[in-house]
Formats: sequence, structure tokens, C-alpha cells
Amino acid sequence: MLFGKNFSDHMFLMNYDENKGWHDPRIIPYQTLSLAPSTMVFHYGQELFEGLKAYRTKNGEIQLFRPEKNIERMNNTSRRLCIPEIDPSDALQAIKEIVKTDSDWVPHEADHSLYIRPFIIATDPFIGVKPSSTYLFMIILSPVGSYYPEGINPVKIYVENEYVRAVKGGIGASKAGANYAASLKGQDKAKHLGYTQVLWLDGVERKYIDEVGTMNVFFVIDGVVKTPALEGSILPGVTRDSCIHILKSWGYKVEETRVALQEIIDASRNGKLNEAFGTGTAAVISPIGTLNNGGEEIIINNAEIGPIAKKLYDTITGIQYGEIKDEFGWTLTV
Amino acid sequence: MLFGKNFSDHMFLMNYDENKGWHDPRIIPYQTLSLAPSTMVFHYGQELFEGLKAYRTKNGEIQLFRPEKNIERMNNTSRRLCIPEIDPSDALQAIKEIVKTDSDWVPHEADHSLYIRPFIIATDPFIGVKPSSTYLFMIILSPVGSYYPEGINPVKIYVENEYVRAVKGGIGASKAGANYAASLKGQDKAKHLGYTQVLWLDGVERKYIDEVGTMNVFFVIDGVVKTPALEGSILPGVTRDSCIHILKSWGYKVEETRVALQEIIDASRNGKLNEAFGTGTAAVISPIGTLNNGGEEIIINNAEIGPIAKKLYDTITGIQYGEIKDEFGWTLTV
Ligand SMILES: Cc1ncc(COP(=O)(O)O)c(C=O)c1O
Ligand SMILES: Cc1ncc(COP(=O)(O)O)c(C=O)c1O
Repeated sequence: MLFGKNFSDHMFLMNYDENKGWHDPRIIPYQTLSLAPSTMVFHYGQELFEGLKAYRTKNGEIQLFRPEKNIERMNNTSRRLCIPEIDPSDALQAIKEIVKTDSDWVPHEADHSLYIRPFIIATDPFIGVKPSSTYLFMIILSPVGSYYPEGINPVKIYVENEYVRAVKGGIGASKAGANYAASLKGQDKAKHLGYTQVLWLDGVERKYIDEVGTMNVFFVIDGVVKTPALEGSILPGVTRDSCIHILKSWGYKVEETRVALQEIIDASRNGKLNEAFGTGTAAVISPIGTLNNGGEEIIINNAEIGPIAKKLYDTITGIQYGEIKDEFGWTLTV
Repeated sequence: MLFGKNFSDHMFLMNYDENKGWHDPRIIPYQTLSLAPSTMVFHYGQELFEGLKAYRTKNGEIQLFRPEKNIERMNNTSRRLCIPEIDPSDALQAIKEIVKTDSDWVPHEADHSLYIRPFIIATDPFIGVKPSSTYLFMIILSPVGSYYPEGINPVKIYVENEYVRAVKGGIGASKAGANYAASLKGQDKAKHLGYTQVLWLDGVERKYIDEVGTMNVFFVIDGVVKTPALEGSILPGVTRDSCIHILKSWGYKVEETRVALQEIIDASRNGKLNEAFGTGTAAVISPIGTLNNGGEEIIINNAEIGPIAKKLYDTITGIQYGEIKDEFGWTLTV
């Protein structure tokens, strides 16, 4: 099942205008939108999205994983983009209702799920550069197959030295469509060179690691787990946050800090780079086997998945599919 | 006549797909677009635009001003955003045809014009992060009144120290919708503080001047004209380029260089800051009367329009409306 191509029968809509605020929440059959060519979203990219999943448990129930974190991040993105915030309980209600309506679309197969895509677009039919005065909030649903149909294989990552995705003071910490537009070129370059994803460096000194494609990134150096701190240029991933909590509960030392690329290279040379992996809703955990830095390749953990990455993957997916006790209170039954 | 709210009777459309390339150029009545909610442009901001104008001359003809520069910039933006380029002669043809079709919409009043908005949106109905494989190129037209109905008044500008618009290695030199989404917050802040536009500083050192809102910026210090160099974080404005050519033809020394904010403050203190002005298609020349830097206000040229700004405005608008001989070969009759 190809991700992002098929959509369920219904969609959720809610409108915003300055008089009524967010109003008219409704679920209607999935259908095309009619928009004037002058609609702001086509011109100034005032748009944001979120991404989370609904999981089918063994006993047939449907679970969400930390949806309140996605809603919180959506409102943070809204503030950065001058989009009016949505009451978190209304947003959660909307997600639950649309998933309930199309609950038959939540797959029963192992490791499958229903991807939930809330998004907001600016809808003023006006081409002056200013925040729109009207918006449309929508939720669409897309069934998605197993990310790892053939088992978890470590990926090859290309360190991007030319293009920059985001910079402190910019919108890199937001889930704004704009960030993804800015990232396409680097991703494309990495793909053409035979790499799965791009590793972004900070836009100021070009020395510190930001994130990997659409994932946050973790390194295990000499038994200590390091991940770039949330300093404004990377997305605060829900999976990242979950990993940090789980690792700490296991007694690991986790440092949210600046991670210099050189530190990773040095650790690799000294045999102290135990593991590296990306984290995100799509793959959950994506072990990094190879890192290409300016033509030089670093192989991490013999390009095999490491024990921490494996245990995190099993734990998080176990919680998501209701196979492991949810000690953190992260799941919500729809 | 409010800019950007009213549109002419027709629009130009052309589609792209991987088999046919850009194909099916057509002019149809102005109408809404039907797009699936999954359409990429709503999610990842893969979109760009251009902006230029058609001018009515005294003898009733219609002129474009350097349209080939906008087309060149559009293709540069396309490359940065992984959008397929359009043959420049096809793009020029499209602009000419749509303006001809709706030639009655080019106003006859002095200082009025018809704003031309070419734009491209990603149209794959697919929510994976990758460049779209289909696109829509459109041109819409909006009549626009005089920018200065009450004469040219210098504007108040706020120096933004917190938010960053763009950084070298990013997409700041592109006319990507994404840049405007990123700029809204700073603009909004400036407006709330009582300023017309925001002056953006570079995202790396936060010391050098990038541009002003939707304008490039020029300073006249002790008779020498300085404007930030095109180093990747500012838009290469057509008006900027025209000003440089005209100023040089007048014998001015024009430096395209890094301009430190401190240099401007020092020049102002020493009485050597003669003039400051923004340049862009909308206003042509917008003199800057006041600059607020962290609460401290600099008044430039007694908050009056300076002689160079005035002469540039008269010259460029004179060429655009066919009242001055076009020595540079910049105009094109439709
Ligand atoms: C740029 C970027 N970084 C990181 C992530 C990971 O975030 P999350 O764990 O919330 O899915 C994502 C989204 O999936 C992303 O798009
Ligand atoms: C960010 C930005 N800078 C500068 C300009 C000026 O460019 P031009 O002179 O081509 O209109 C514009 C557009 O008008 C702009 O949007």
C-alpha cells in the first residue's frame, strides 16, 4: 500500500473568518476543493500540516498515539505563521470523529495503520502579502502499509553542505509547508547520489547537526545518547520526545545538546559511535548505516541495526499497537 | 482600486506532466480551480510566483517592463524548488497573449497599471515529501491604482532582530511562496508597532542588511550608493537591477556589497546618510524616512524624499509609461 496516494471516504473541514472564528466543523465525503486562483495559499505558502496515525490493536480497537502533542505543535506552527490557533479539545474531537467515521479504513494487518493528515490553508482570494483573514482546517486520512515489509534495514544518509533547510529565527521548528519546499532540492540531490535522506547542518555555522530529512536524529556515543537540542531550527518530533522519555526510563543518559558533525566523525574513527538512528512518525526508528560527508563514508555499527534502535522500535510500536503496556499514558482509544 | 482583489476576465493556464512536459497552453475565463485536498501545494508549499505590470502609454499602447527578467527569475526559482523550467519564449508569449486578451483591463488613468501574476503550483494528489510530478502554470491579472495617490511619502521601517526571513544556502533568492510565509510574523510585528515594513538582517551574523519587506534596499552615503550584494539570501529585484543601471548611467558610484546595519547608523550619526529607499515593482521607489533599531529611531533626510529617490522614481515610471525615451531597451509593446 503506497503511502499518501489513497484516501478514505470522508474528510473533516472547519472554516475560520474574523467574525465567527473557527466555525462550522463538519465531516463530508472526500471531494475536491474549489478555490479561486487568487487564493493566498497558492501564492504565499501560508499553510501548515501535521501527521499522526491511528493503529488497530489485536482486539480490534483503534488507538491514537499522543495526539495532543501534534495538536500542540500545530498551534505552535500556527502562531509562527500568523494563523489563528484552534482550541486543542476541538482539534482532538475532530481527529477522533473523522477516524471514527472512517474506522473501517484502519487496517487490520500487522504494522499497517491509518495516516491522519490535519492541515490548514490560507483562503483569502487576495494577492497582497499579509496574513489571510480566512482559513480552512481539514483532516484527510490515508491507509499506510508496513514501513519495513522486509525488516528494518539501515539507511544511507548524505551530509548536505551546500543547501540549508532552516535557521534559528526562521520557521524550522514549525511544521510549515514552506520548510518542505525548501528541503526538496537537498533531498533530490541526495537521492541522485544514491542516498536515502539528507542530513541537514545548522544554517549559521554549518557545523552542527540539525535533523535528517523528515526525522530527528539520535547518536549513541560510548553508551551516551545524544540528540540535537530544540533551538529553533529543527522540528520537535513526537517520536523524538517519546524516545527521550523511554531511554531515560531505561536508565540511559540522554543529552539534548549541540551535536557537531565533527564529534560524530571523531567518535566513529575512535570506535565509539555505537549507533545512529532517525525518529519520526512514518518509520518510527530508522537506523543509519552509512553517512557520507563530502565523499567520505562513515559506516555505523557495521551498517546493522543497533540494540538501542531495535529496542526503541519494538517498544514504541508495541505501545502503538497495544501489545505492550502503555506505562506513559500515551495512547488514546478512539 | 485595492491591489490584488479584483481580477480580469481571463486567465492563462498550462500543465506539466512527466510525459508531455509543459503542454496545453490555454486562455480561459477566470474561474475557480478544482483540486483534491491531497494536492501537494496545500501541504509542502511547492509553489512560486512572479509579479510584473502592464502600463498604458499616453498614445494608448500597452507596455511591459523587462518581462524577460521576471521569466529568468521564475526559472531560477523553479530550479531551486525542483519545478521544471518553462521555455522563456513560451512564458513571454503567454504573458503577452493574456494581456492582449484582457487589454481593456489595462487602466488609462495616470499611475494605474495592470498587475500580472504568473505562478506555478505542484498538483500531484500525493502527500509524500518529494517534488511533484505534475504542475500548473497560471497567469492572472489584477488592475491596480496609483501606489502614491497623495504623493510619495517616506515610510517607517522596523529593524527585525528576532525573526529571520532567509539565510544563505536557503531559498531567499527565490520567489518561492515559502519565503513569504516565513516573513509574515516579522511584518505583523512591525505593523503592530506602527511601522510600514520590516528590515531583515542576514540570518548568520544578524549584522548585515538583507532587504525590506518586499523591496530591495539602497542607501546613499556621502554621495555613494550602496545596496546589499546578491549573495543568496535576498531576491534579485528587477527594480533593483534597473536602479543600478540608471544610477551608473548618471555617473553615480554604486556598490553592491555587504551593508552592515552599524554602517548605516554611523553614517546617520555623522550626517553622511543622505538617502535610503526601497525598490520593487509595486512602489517602484519607496523612500525610507525612519528606521527603528531596537527602540532607537534614525530619521533619514528629515523624513523627506531625497533627490536621487525622486529622480529614479520619475525616470523608471517615465520609461514604464512611455513618457521618457527608453534608452535601455527595457520596454516591450504588447
Ligand atoms: C522535518 C521533520 N523532522 C522530524 C519529524 C519527526 O516528527 P514526528 O516524530 O512528530 O513524526 C518530521 C515529521 O515526521 C519532520 O517532517
Ligand atoms: C522579497 C522581495 N524583495 C524584493 C522585491 C523587489 O523585486 P522587483 O523589483 O523585481 O519587484 C520583491 C518583489 O516585488 C520581493 O518580494
